[in-house]
Amino acid sequence: MTSSSTDTPAPVLVLVPGAAGTPHDGSAPFRLADPAVPQLSITDLVATRGDGIFETIGAFDGRPINVGPHLARLARSASLLQMPAPHQETLLAAIDAAIEAHADVPELTIRVMYTRGIEGAGTPTCWIDAHVSDDWAPYRRGIRVAALDRGLSTAVPETSPWLLPGAKTLSYAVNMAAVREAKRRGAQDALFVATDGYVLEGPTSTLLVRRGDAFLTTPVSAGVLPGTCVTTLFTALQDEGHEVREQLMTVADVAGSDGAWLLSSTRLAAPITHLDEAELPLDLELTERFEALLSGRA
Amino acid sequence: MTSSSTDTPAPVLVLVPGAAGTPHDGSAPFRLADPAVPQLSITDLVATRGDGIFETIGAFDGRPINVGPHLARLARSASLLQMPAPHQETLLAAIDAAIEAHADVPELTIRVMYTRGIEGAGTPTCWIDAHVSDDWAPYRRGIRVAALDRGLSTAVPETSPWLLPGAKTLSYAVNMAAVREAKRRGAQDALFVATDGYVLEGPTSTLLVRRGDAFLTTPVSAGVLPGTCVTTLFTALQDEGHEVREQLMTVADVAGSDGAWLLSSTRLAAPITHLDEAELPLDLELTERFEALLSGRA
Repeated sequence: MTSSSTDTPAPVLVLVPGAAGTPHDGSAPFRLADPAVPQLSITDLVATRGDGIFETIGAFDGRPINVGPHLARLARSASLLQMPAPHQETLLAAIDAAIEAHADVPELTIRVMYTRGIEGAGTPTCWIDAHVSDDWAPYRRGIRVAALDRGLSTAVPETSPWLLPGAKTLSYAVNMAAVREAKRRGAQDALFVATDGYVLEGPTSTLLVRRGDAFLTTPVSAGVLPGTCVTTLFTALQDEGHEVREQLMTVADVAGSDGAWLLSSTRLAAPITHLDEAELPLDLELTERFEALLSGRA
Repeated sequence: MTSSSTDTPAPVLVLVPGAAGTPHDGSAPFRLADPAVPQLSITDLVATRGDGIFETIGAFDGRPINVGPHLARLARSASLLQMPAPHQETLLAAIDAAIEAHADVPELTIRVMYTRGIEGAGTPTCWIDAHVSDDWAPYRRGIRVAALDRGLSTAVPETSPWLLPGAKTLSYAVNMAAVREAKRRGAQDALFVATDGYVLEGPTSTLLVRRGDAFLTTPVSAGVLPGTCVTTLFTALQDEGHEVREQLMTVADVAGSDGAWLLSSTRLAAPITHLDEAELPLDLELTERFEALLSGRA
């Protein structure tokens, strides 16, 4: 959400008609457009069914982070939803164009949206918007997190792929409802829990847990998104000799851990101060190092 | 989805800025607009999060069916999603305006879409579109249905309301994926099954089952939408002395029943010829009577 202050640089919109290949009419694969003007058809399947996928990328001091992994994950989501594969080079160029067109700011949020397209057309609709990131400073100092039932078991990816576990879809009404419920409980964010008792991920974030010298996250096979941030941190931590691995964990495991974070490309590494009523140890120095790694400012 | 044939009357779009109360700028609560022109902001929360609700209403020979129950269900969905209540009288008038503006056709599909609005604005976005219904004649003659795991238990409405059971949201990517999976299996539609073994509803329909002289449907308390069609049929059947009730049923119960239908406001009553491999008895006469009741042509 962008601020409405007149001091805030204007958001930038890039429409990408060539996101799944060259447009039939031979027009440019992407172009700048006015985000203040309606640009979407009311029969786009994202508007009528939430039928689409997305990625959110952080850019810090003008440099977008993990663009390759984000676009790889978009391609993975497209495959899970049986959508045409996104054209990686076009999206890379369009992301660059969005950053180029935006005023220089310390923190930029870039959303890559890719829908099933207008009903009957069979061509994805794609747009990229870049806007000044919200002020996440308070969130990054530490968050209370509410553990919330996700209703699904960790077996779902194997048994019921049509439930789209692990796909980053534009059907996020439940994710938004979970954040509202967490706030109602006095927390700032939620952590989803599977019906078999294992923690999954946040509605818009990945879980990282420290246990002694080891760093753990939920296995992708349990139905969570493959986190881009956790991959960055795992690589750095492993280089330093830490053990890193995917592991199923219960709420009690996290509550009794040596520290836990929710990771996201724009909010970076937010330390969990409380999981429900349980207080977790805080390591501000480590958190700052995570932030530096995730923002490319290390 | 409207046909692109030049013989097909043009779809109609009504924008409803007054759907949650009079617009602040004093403008009209609704107005006709061109559906061929983009009308939605890329920062509308329906486009970025699938965060909205909807209803689909059938109009037969120009008469919309069950408008009151549909708008009541829209209000129920709004409440479940903690959205502002829709203004029923404005929506009623806007629906009438959409039908009025559309060419006279035997079967019209009217969608009432109600989103959380543009990010930061706090005002719902609402539009109504009316278009010639697809040709549902083959579907109405009988459908093969695939039973598909919904991943959730029937206890979810009580334990985990943030999973939005029973809300008709615009986050329907899973519903669409389930229909794709059903078609991959050679069926025309799906029937969702809860993890505790009870059948729920179709991705875009309500289940009706006949057992002897009794007619049954899944309890709303199990997390399904309150069906408008099943209410119409229950009222008529009860008047004729049939027993009608909500009841939890297994896949085997439905497969061994004396007939089953998927009900929807536009497709009406489609008899299930096969549930997975099980063949069900067909009653064409009863199906035709259901169609007449649901289309208001009785």
